[in-house]
Amino acid sequence: MGATVATGSQSFSNTAVSTAATAFDRWALRRIQLTVPDAPIQFSLWDGYTLRPAVAPVASITFRNRRALLSWVYDADLYFGETYMFGAVEITGDLLALLEAIYRRPASSKALSGRGQHPNTTEASRANVHHHYDLGNDFYRLWLDRQLLYTCAYFPTEDCSLEEAQTAKMDLVCRKLGLRPGERVVEAGCGWGALALHMARSYGVTVRAFNISSEQIAYARDRASAEGLTSSVEFVEDDYRNVSGRYDVFVSVGMLEHVGLAHFSSLSDAIDRTLTPTGRGFLHFIGRNRPAPLNRWIRRRIFPGAYPPTLQEVCALVLEPANLSVLDIENLRLHYAATLVHWRSRFERASDEVAERFDDAFVRAWRLYLAGSQAAFTTGWMQLFQIVFARGTSNAVPWTRTV
Amino acid sequence: MGATVATGSQSFSNTAVSTAATAFDRWALRRIQLTVPDAPIQFSLWDGYTLRPAVAPVASITFRNRRALLSWVYDADLYFGETYMFGAVEITGDLLALLEAIYRRPASSKALSGRGQHPNTTEASRANVHHHYDLGNDFYRLWLDRQLLYTCAYFPTEDCSLEEAQTAKMDLVCRKLGLRPGERVVEAGCGWGALALHMARSYGVTVRAFNISSEQIAYARDRASAEGLTSSVEFVEDDYRNVSGRYDVFVSVGMLEHVGLAHFSSLSDAIDRTLTPTGRGFLHFIGRNRPAPLNRWIRRRIFPGAYPPTLQEVCALVLEPANLSVLDIENLRLHYAATLVHWRSRFERASDEVAERFDDAFVRAWRLYLAGSQAAFTTGWMQLFQIVFARGTSNAVPWTRTV
Repeated sequence: MGATVATGSQSFSNTAVSTAATAFDRWALRRIQLTVPDAPIQFSLWDGYTLRPAVAPVASITFRNRRALLSWVYDADLYFGETYMFGAVEITGDLLALLEAIYRRPASSKALSGRGQHPNTTEASRANVHHHYDLGNDFYRLWLDRQLLYTCAYFPTEDCSLEEAQTAKMDLVCRKLGLRPGERVVEAGCGWGALALHMARSYGVTVRAFNISSEQIAYARDRASAEGLTSSVEFVEDDYRNVSGRYDVFVSVGMLEHVGLAHFSSLSDAIDRTLTPTGRGFLHFIGRNRPAPLNRWIRRRIFPGAYPPTLQEVCALVLEPANLSVLDIENLRLHYAATLVHWRSRFERASDEVAERFDDAFVRAWRLYLAGSQAAFTTGWMQLFQIVFARGTSNAVPWTRTV
Repeated sequence: MGATVATGSQSFSNTAVSTAATAFDRWALRRIQLTVPDAPIQFSLWDGYTLRPAVAPVASITFRNRRALLSWVYDADLYFGETYMFGAVEITGDLLALLEAIYRRPASSKALSGRGQHPNTTEASRANVHHHYDLGNDFYRLWLDRQLLYTCAYFPTEDCSLEEAQTAKMDLVCRKLGLRPGERVVEAGCGWGALALHMARSYGVTVRAFNISSEQIAYARDRASAEGLTSSVEFVEDDYRNVSGRYDVFVSVGMLEHVGLAHFSSLSDAIDRTLTPTGRGFLHFIGRNRPAPLNRWIRRRIFPGAYPPTLQEVCALVLEPANLSVLDIENLRLHYAATLVHWRSRFERASDEVAERFDDAFVRAWRLYLAGSQAAFTTGWMQLFQIVFARGTSNAVPWTRTV
């Protein structure tokens, strides 16, 4: 797995020899600083030349060689992550505060680019999912909660534990859906199966749960057996586009952001095909207030094919075509930031073990990805939407909210 | 006001003489019936010729003359209302059930047309509002609740009174916004002022409330004086596009559906211009699951310039351009149906008085409009959305829902 993250960027070594900094290098550094003109960030070159911000810095960025420096001028969106993970850029101080400052820079300087997005065919989806989720259950067990929920938790109070918050999230989903015993639920993208098992165990429904990650499915099946829930929960190793049967409830938590806009209509079709006339559904996903491609480094190293959509895009491409009616939407982005506080703290405690299993570049890549995600949620750059919907013609919908 | 509704359609008289029905007339009747092939509706001609549905009819439609019959073949979207209001078509039985059956017909036969929509310039907006809201406070007092709220109520239980439900609605809005004493609120489209007064009285905020209907503003100012609230509530006779000042909260209940898509960007600008960096807002409006123009008869006779938007349109044209973040959306369409049950019952009790003040055509027009609105909400043809939003960069947002 170390090979995966190192492909193609070995040249960003922290040991590469650079000649003494020139006037051109200093110009390049100033140019980089000007993309975040008011940020409390200090910038340095390999020879000690430093640009200090007007206020006390929260962190400092040191370029170890010219190649790293010029890569940021060329495409910081991609090479920030590349140079950091391979040690060609060193960051000291508060990484989270630094990333928040970058997210808060004026919108006009956000030169995010859409190039490089590739279509998620069924084959590509498998490759994408394997890239990320098949890193091994043992890896995720090091820093996720005991039930392995790799999606935003819900903290009824800000000081509750991650375990409590993940259970509260599952109950929130079930309450919003108003699950009744005996109902049939289909889940698209079930991760390690926690929600499917929770629904069956605590709400008396039967669940068919789809996932294309073999290792996750194997784990989920083991859990179902161990809990004696195999008669009410079936884990299917298949793509959401191949969902068949008819269900009272369609639920998908943390999958939509991996589907890609080009495939929203397939998802819409799958929902339309499987939902009963009084059916209802639930989508929980990372989204945006305005359209923007996901950071290219995240797409290259962490989540190939991912795209957090806007509500507009979800309405236009998933809900409207199937005449589905929005009943309820909630934005939980600050809960995702709180979830990430827990994940990051657990990840850092396990970082030596992660480095042993993979390598240092892998640890730095995940450190950056987790901190960057938290910063995106605290600054409002990314959202976490939960949508409850129903058939447009169905009146079998909640009269008032229970949550 | 009788003149307003009678303009241009006197020819649809119930006394017009028609020649005996011909084979052509019977063909036309069958053609009309085929637009609602499975509906439990009976169709008759002036000479007694009748097409009976396969099931027991909920209502029957009788054409009194050929002109009325052919107008439906030509454009039922417009002439259903025209012929009904002038008595050239008679409907017996359950008007609501009939309209629900029509709304439930297959989507492919919904030949709604967009022609005739006209832009709501500031001048046109005044004319549109005068058309409807300046029918006279006395008219609305006959059938609205005591506080004159002409928007969807909120029924915590299905059996509560209209008065209770309208107060519950105002509290729902205030709780969703999390109003705190001393905050400054701007209201766009304040009707007779009930919400502005309620917010000031019960939540200790100061309110500037805009409306372009002189008669409503005069009424609202009288109420503010009578309640001693003139220091905390200011009623401004002006267009929402002229809103000035800075506010903690922007609220608009029942105005967006009258704004028109072409002016959503002006509304977006007004919100962006007036909201503080930690400001939040609220939009309550009649909407759609999928784009469709409002019925042309409703636009001609009841609400010129009205257009119920989809969530997609509101996101694209109001929220995204100002980087506003959706925090919460709720769909209360069944509450609007419940509200209309009350309005219709009160309207029917007052119908003699309405006929005296206006004329019979006016009573029939409003009977059809109110029943048609209820049917649109019960069949899912129209929605009632409440959106809570905030600045995209603000974390001064509720941690969890209180409602």
